[in-house]
Amino acid sequence: MDIADLTPELLPFLGQAAYFELGMFENLAQAIRLAPDLDSKEGLSAAAGRALAKHQGLVAEIRRRGGEPSEVMAPFAPALDDFRAKTMGADWRELLLSCYLAGGLLDDFFIRLSDGLPGDVGPRVAHLLGQGAGTDVLVKHLKAAIDGDPRLGSHLALWGRRLVGDTLLVARSAIPAAVPAAGASAPGEERIEPVFTELIAAHTRRMDGLGLTA
Amino acid sequence: MDIADLTPELLPFLGQAAYFELGMFENLAQAIRLAPDLDSKEGLSAAAGRALAKHQGLVAEIRRRGGEPSEVMAPFAPALDDFRAKTMGADWRELLLSCYLAGGLLDDFFIRLSDGLPGDVGPRVAHLLGQGAGTDVLVKHLKAAIDGDPRLGSHLALWGRRLVGDTLLVARSAIPAAVPAAGASAPGEERIEPVFTELIAAHTRRMDGLGLTA
Repeated sequence: MDIADLTPELLPFLGQAAYFELGMFENLAQAIRLAPDLDSKEGLSAAAGRALAKHQGLVAEIRRRGGEPSEVMAPFAPALDDFRAKTMGADWRELLLSCYLAGGLLDDFFIRLSDGLPGDVGPRVAHLLGQGAGTDVLVKHLKAAIDGDPRLGSHLALWGRRLVGDTLLVARSAIPAAVPAAGASAPGEERIEPVFTELIAAHTRRMDGLGLTA
Repeated sequence: MDIADLTPELLPFLGQAAYFELGMFENLAQAIRLAPDLDSKEGLSAAAGRALAKHQGLVAEIRRRGGEPSEVMAPFAPALDDFRAKTMGADWRELLLSCYLAGGLLDDFFIRLSDGLPGDVGPRVAHLLGQGAGTDVLVKHLKAAIDGDPRLGSHLALWGRRLVGDTLLVARSAIPAAVPAAGASAPGEERIEPVFTELIAAHTRRMDGLGLTA
């Protein structure tokens, strides 16, 4: 299966990824605000900085191709704002889990799609998004909380299962072939399937790592 | 007058400046959330990135001296959190003006104090804090709003005058000599005065630049 067949147009791809990273940054900034102590704030600020650097790197790629970042991102704002609202969570821990799971899955996904981009932009995007996400701090706080409270573990496991559904919908929306016209067959489905299997496997490893049942 | 006489201990200085920059970052993240359009969000994200880089640079200086950043910042958290709460403003424009005026004044102030720091840390801190603050975007949005609405101009002028008072109190709290024991005279006062005169002059230039009466 050739991911290149599934690759969207370059500028829309960059616009969606850039707006997603801006949202990750906003979520992490919110996590900083809600953090219960200075040590957590401090660690989260590094993660927020990474998300912002990814956003800015993608915006630089948009500009390099003569795109106006706000225009290129705009078509993706409604769906991604809605996604953020649904996955923001009711408290600090739910928000941390969202940042970790949705950020991990969609970074993986955008890296995977970037394989099919023309010229040298694919490797540059993969390098940018593949940099350590600074999420160790999320894992540390989540593990500490879950280890100390089994009921929180099952609550967050449920939240993680809900998140992955919404997150996969965002991924799916980035692949034009995945949205066939009404009544048409979906020729891309069988080629998309293995990509999603990989994404879900990585998601399950993240859940396992936290001691949560995926 | 020798600023070195007024310089606080190194680690507390770094801790207060680092926590202030973290707060600036949080305010700018809030400004991103409140921004009315994608273009503004995009511009503000660069300013937030600058504030975060300043915070992280100061945290690196704390670690280089064996300090634990959250411990070194902690004593300043209550007063600076209170300052942020008071200067957050009631809407997006008040918040932008706070970021511009308080950020400008206290960056200037910390750079001034850094002159007296031992070794090579002073020049490094001055370089870090003196980097373009990415505040052009704040000025652009404020000017556009004020030019189109004279009543907003006089409202923001009032807000700016209130901000400067609270901001100067933060600066004053960073100078040990400025807080004499009860009943004692304040030997630092006459040496501090010229520093504050400079800070206020720069503040007035910022207000003038926006078309506001300081």
